[in-house]
Amino acid sequence: MLKSSKGGYDGYGNETVKDPESALEAFEKLGGNDGRDILAEAFVDFTHELAVQVARNETGTVVYPCCETVQKNHICVAVLSPAPVDSHFQELAQQLAVKATEAIDGKGIFAYEFFLTKGGKVLLNESAPRPHNSGHYTIEGTVTSQFENHVRAVLGLPLGSSEMIKPAVAMINLLGTHKRPATTENITDAFNEENGHLHVYGKIDSKVGRKMGHFTLLGDSLEETYKRAMHVTRNIEI
Amino acid sequence: MLKSSKGGYDGYGNETVKDPESALEAFEKLGGNDGRDILAEAFVDFTHELAVQVARNETGTVVYPCCETVQKNHICVAVLSPAPVDSHFQELAQQLAVKATEAIDGKGIFAYEFFLTKGGKVLLNESAPRPHNSGHYTIEGTVTSQFENHVRAVLGLPLGSSEMIKPAVAMINLLGTHKRPATTENITDAFNEENGHLHVYGKIDSKVGRKMGHFTLLGDSLEETYKRAMHVTRNIEI
Repeated sequence: MLKSSKGGYDGYGNETVKDPESALEAFEKLGGNDGRDILAEAFVDFTHELAVQVARNETGTVVYPCCETVQKNHICVAVLSPAPVDSHFQELAQQLAVKATEAIDGKGIFAYEFFLTKGGKVLLNESAPRPHNSGHYTIEGTVTSQFENHVRAVLGLPLGSSEMIKPAVAMINLLGTHKRPATTENITDAFNEENGHLHVYGKIDSKVGRKMGHFTLLGDSLEETYKRAMHVTRNIEI
Repeated sequence: MLKSSKGGYDGYGNETVKDPESALEAFEKLGGNDGRDILAEAFVDFTHELAVQVARNETGTVVYPCCETVQKNHICVAVLSPAPVDSHFQELAQQLAVKATEAIDGKGIFAYEFFLTKGGKVLLNESAPRPHNSGHYTIEGTVTSQFENHVRAVLGLPLGSSEMIKPAVAMINLLGTHKRPATTENITDAFNEENGHLHVYGKIDSKVGRKMGHFTLLGDSLEETYKRAMHVTRNIEI
């Protein structure tokens, strides 16, 4: 993997290379020839991508459930909480997230992303010192949202509980499908869904793959909830 | 009871009279001598004050749980949901609230207040065609808040569920105690409470009895939740 040292997000700034030729191509594409530093990393063969949010200040530390981020074309399309992986891996990710926050004496909300490798390792992959897309499910899915705990943390207030409201949550990112002024179409199914919460961000323009909103569904079974959330959002266009 | 025909709220514009002399006094105090219309009503001997929110538009009608509003000096100091009264009375209040909304072909969110009389009657006492203090507990206490359902209703969208998140909710109004610029003091206990949610309205000035914020606590037993909510808010000053 070649990675730009700056400005990478949603797969931008990353290139998978297979041989010296494609490495040179990727180096140029990422700005290496224009003097930008480029990182080279071994490719990690993973089965799941996981994420954990941590809120921390002088009153204490609160760790959120370990969720799975489902990616398609390097963009997160869904978040499932708790992650459908062995609880041992969930706890490993949570411990790493807390340790990483303590290591920098972090105050506020932090999001960490992990690879769960085929060999059963949990590798910390990315950190974001802010509310993060992987934690949007906490708005309705946990007692205290990542946003509220960020505000509490920076104000020095006691942090709120990260307990789940229902056993399972699925969050679906609603991505733009065309370059055009944003509209909001076919949202009725989502609104008709008990325990469903639709968020439309109000961005002026839509473009392919742009995060235009999200839909959160709470339920008792993760598999059913994910399936249902995908179903009721299948025709939404923003 | 003498009541001003205009501008009454939080006990303002109401006077309890015992005899012709106090009636004349109240009539003058309420503006009767200045030409304002004054209503006279029989005093109702009640055991509880109840409230119900209803959301309605062309897609359907959603009725919220019947809650109790606890009043002190004519101001609502707490809301308990569901109301600690026989479910028969809860259902009566909910039916009356739906009927009242249908009778005026209401669209949006409506709040209704009721007296439960010593004789076991449920009397509709007040209606408000808007989000209402008695429904603030729905922000965290139900799947869809009164505010979200109001927006859904006026946009013609399907309405969200009014199901409770936990079996019991207590909402405590935080009233000003002095005439002074607003501050926020002794809020740590409230923030430390798992399943508690503090709201501070950001009003510039505090005055005696003014609603400066509220605290909502979710729990399993109404009695315990109410007691606990009163306890952790006992020293808050805004």
